[in-house]
Amino acid sequence: MGLEKYWATDPSDALRVRQGFTLADVDTRSTPGFEGGKSEAETSLADGASILAVLQEQLFAGNQMGDDPRRVLLVLQAMDTAGKGGIVKHVMSAVDPQGVQYATFKQPTEEELAQDFLWRIAKRVPDAGMIGVFDRSHYEDVLIGKVRELASPEEIERRYDAINEFEAELAASGTTIIKVMLHISMEEQKERLLDRLERPDKHWKFSPGDIEERMLAPKYQEAYQVVFDRTTTPHAPWYVIPADRKWYARLAVQHLLIEALEAMRLDWPLATFDIEEQKLRLEAS
Amino acid sequence: MGLEKYWATDPSDALRVRQGFTLADVDTRSTPGFEGGKSEAETSLADGASILAVLQEQLFAGNQMGDDPRRVLLVLQAMDTAGKGGIVKHVMSAVDPQGVQYATFKQPTEEELAQDFLWRIAKRVPDAGMIGVFDRSHYEDVLIGKVRELASPEEIERRYDAINEFEAELAASGTTIIKVMLHISMEEQKERLLDRLERPDKHWKFSPGDIEERMLAPKYQEAYQVVFDRTTTPHAPWYVIPADRKWYARLAVQHLLIEALEAMRLDWPLATFDIEEQKLRLEAS
Repeated sequence: MGLEKYWATDPSDALRVRQGFTLADVDTRSTPGFEGGKSEAETSLADGASILAVLQEQLFAGNQMGDDPRRVLLVLQAMDTAGKGGIVKHVMSAVDPQGVQYATFKQPTEEELAQDFLWRIAKRVPDAGMIGVFDRSHYEDVLIGKVRELASPEEIERRYDAINEFEAELAASGTTIIKVMLHISMEEQKERLLDRLERPDKHWKFSPGDIEERMLAPKYQEAYQVVFDRTTTPHAPWYVIPADRKWYARLAVQHLLIEALEAMRLDWPLATFDIEEQKLRLEAS
Repeated sequence: MGLEKYWATDPSDALRVRQGFTLADVDTRSTPGFEGGKSEAETSLADGASILAVLQEQLFAGNQMGDDPRRVLLVLQAMDTAGKGGIVKHVMSAVDPQGVQYATFKQPTEEELAQDFLWRIAKRVPDAGMIGVFDRSHYEDVLIGKVRELASPEEIERRYDAINEFEAELAASGTTIIKVMLHISMEEQKERLLDRLERPDKHWKFSPGDIEERMLAPKYQEAYQVVFDRTTTPHAPWYVIPADRKWYARLAVQHLLIEALEAMRLDWPLATFDIEEQKLRLEAS
């Protein structure tokens, strides 16, 4: 993809969760596969932005003109402050906003709670030709759901299989699924929360509940480990991205998207009309 | 707003449709209010991007933390190739995608046609704290609706009032409405359509139907004039932006957004918790 100069190993390879993967072993300050530092990362991100923009436009165009049913779904999961928002801002801002569909999943509403946990998720999957980004997702229902015991153990158990089935169907209908967990250390999180407390322009991002969630981090780590063990599938792989260095996390997600789009072998759709004939009509108009 | 060095008159003043406005009198190559050329416009657009990003974040933050119900709706109308897509790409890309809601209105579906024309529109108005962008809108129902006689003259008549009432309600619920028509000349449109025919990466943006629409341009101009005459209100003003020069149109829309947000007197919401207390809790966690 022309960016190989900085990558010894593609992120899809370096970050992919495989059998035997242990979250506790991940060094959150590491930069797997990337051989540069922050300044190389900035260059690489800018180069990647142009590449990603063209690929996204081809995905969109293929649907507009050729009814190509394919789409991409990027699932972002992370502890508070790990940088989901920054990924959206710094990676996705490179592409045409009209080709991206965002969905943020917060605490479910009464209406949503009255339905199966996948009901609200299914309503927000990306349309054909689009890149969908889930800021949190159905995985909350087996993460906070498990840690805070919002559902019975039997129901949580059932959900892993339900998720796998749901994602298999999505994949079968032409969705490339990329599941990302941004992983930061407790120390890094403390610093970032402190920053939010110290800056008046960041107060709105802080909630006292963030500290309660933070104290539950070990339980979340366990819950994530089960998620990886149970929902890592060939059609919906997980990638765990060390995220103490924001520049690495952004670059890695961008690269994962580029790899996924390149694997789709996109191109500009062929005209369905006679170009010369249309030129004559246009001239005469 | 710190950008006055290039503007002799604010776009909200220079471009606003007032009583007696005549679309036919607009010079599509003009750059009302702006004193620079293309390169000054680029500098100005970059400066404006940072300003817009902060204002949008304050709008979003005010809703997240303070339940501020306010929101902004930017309505974009134009002939084909006038640059709606470019506005979204080059102006809106400056702000956090999570704070923007796009809605594109194409030919209505069977389901939509079975309802009042405002039904599908009402479903897509921006949520509190968001900037909504309509790529085409309810105005299509009195533009193509009138030109192609898709509804009876009585129904078209009824719609102007229905639109005014709908927009008055939106405004009353805290929506700042900015209605923009991008205006290009027939010659400029011919060049841009030709460009789409000549470039394989643009073929997908062309449809033979574009030429039929083009031939109806005089009728569309008339229909737009009626729109301006009937739906220009204090709470939902129209701005006609000469758009033969893309750089001017983008800058003007960006400036209109900035002016609208500045008029809302936004600021960072105050913390609803005791900052020092939270710091101690965080340190101990």
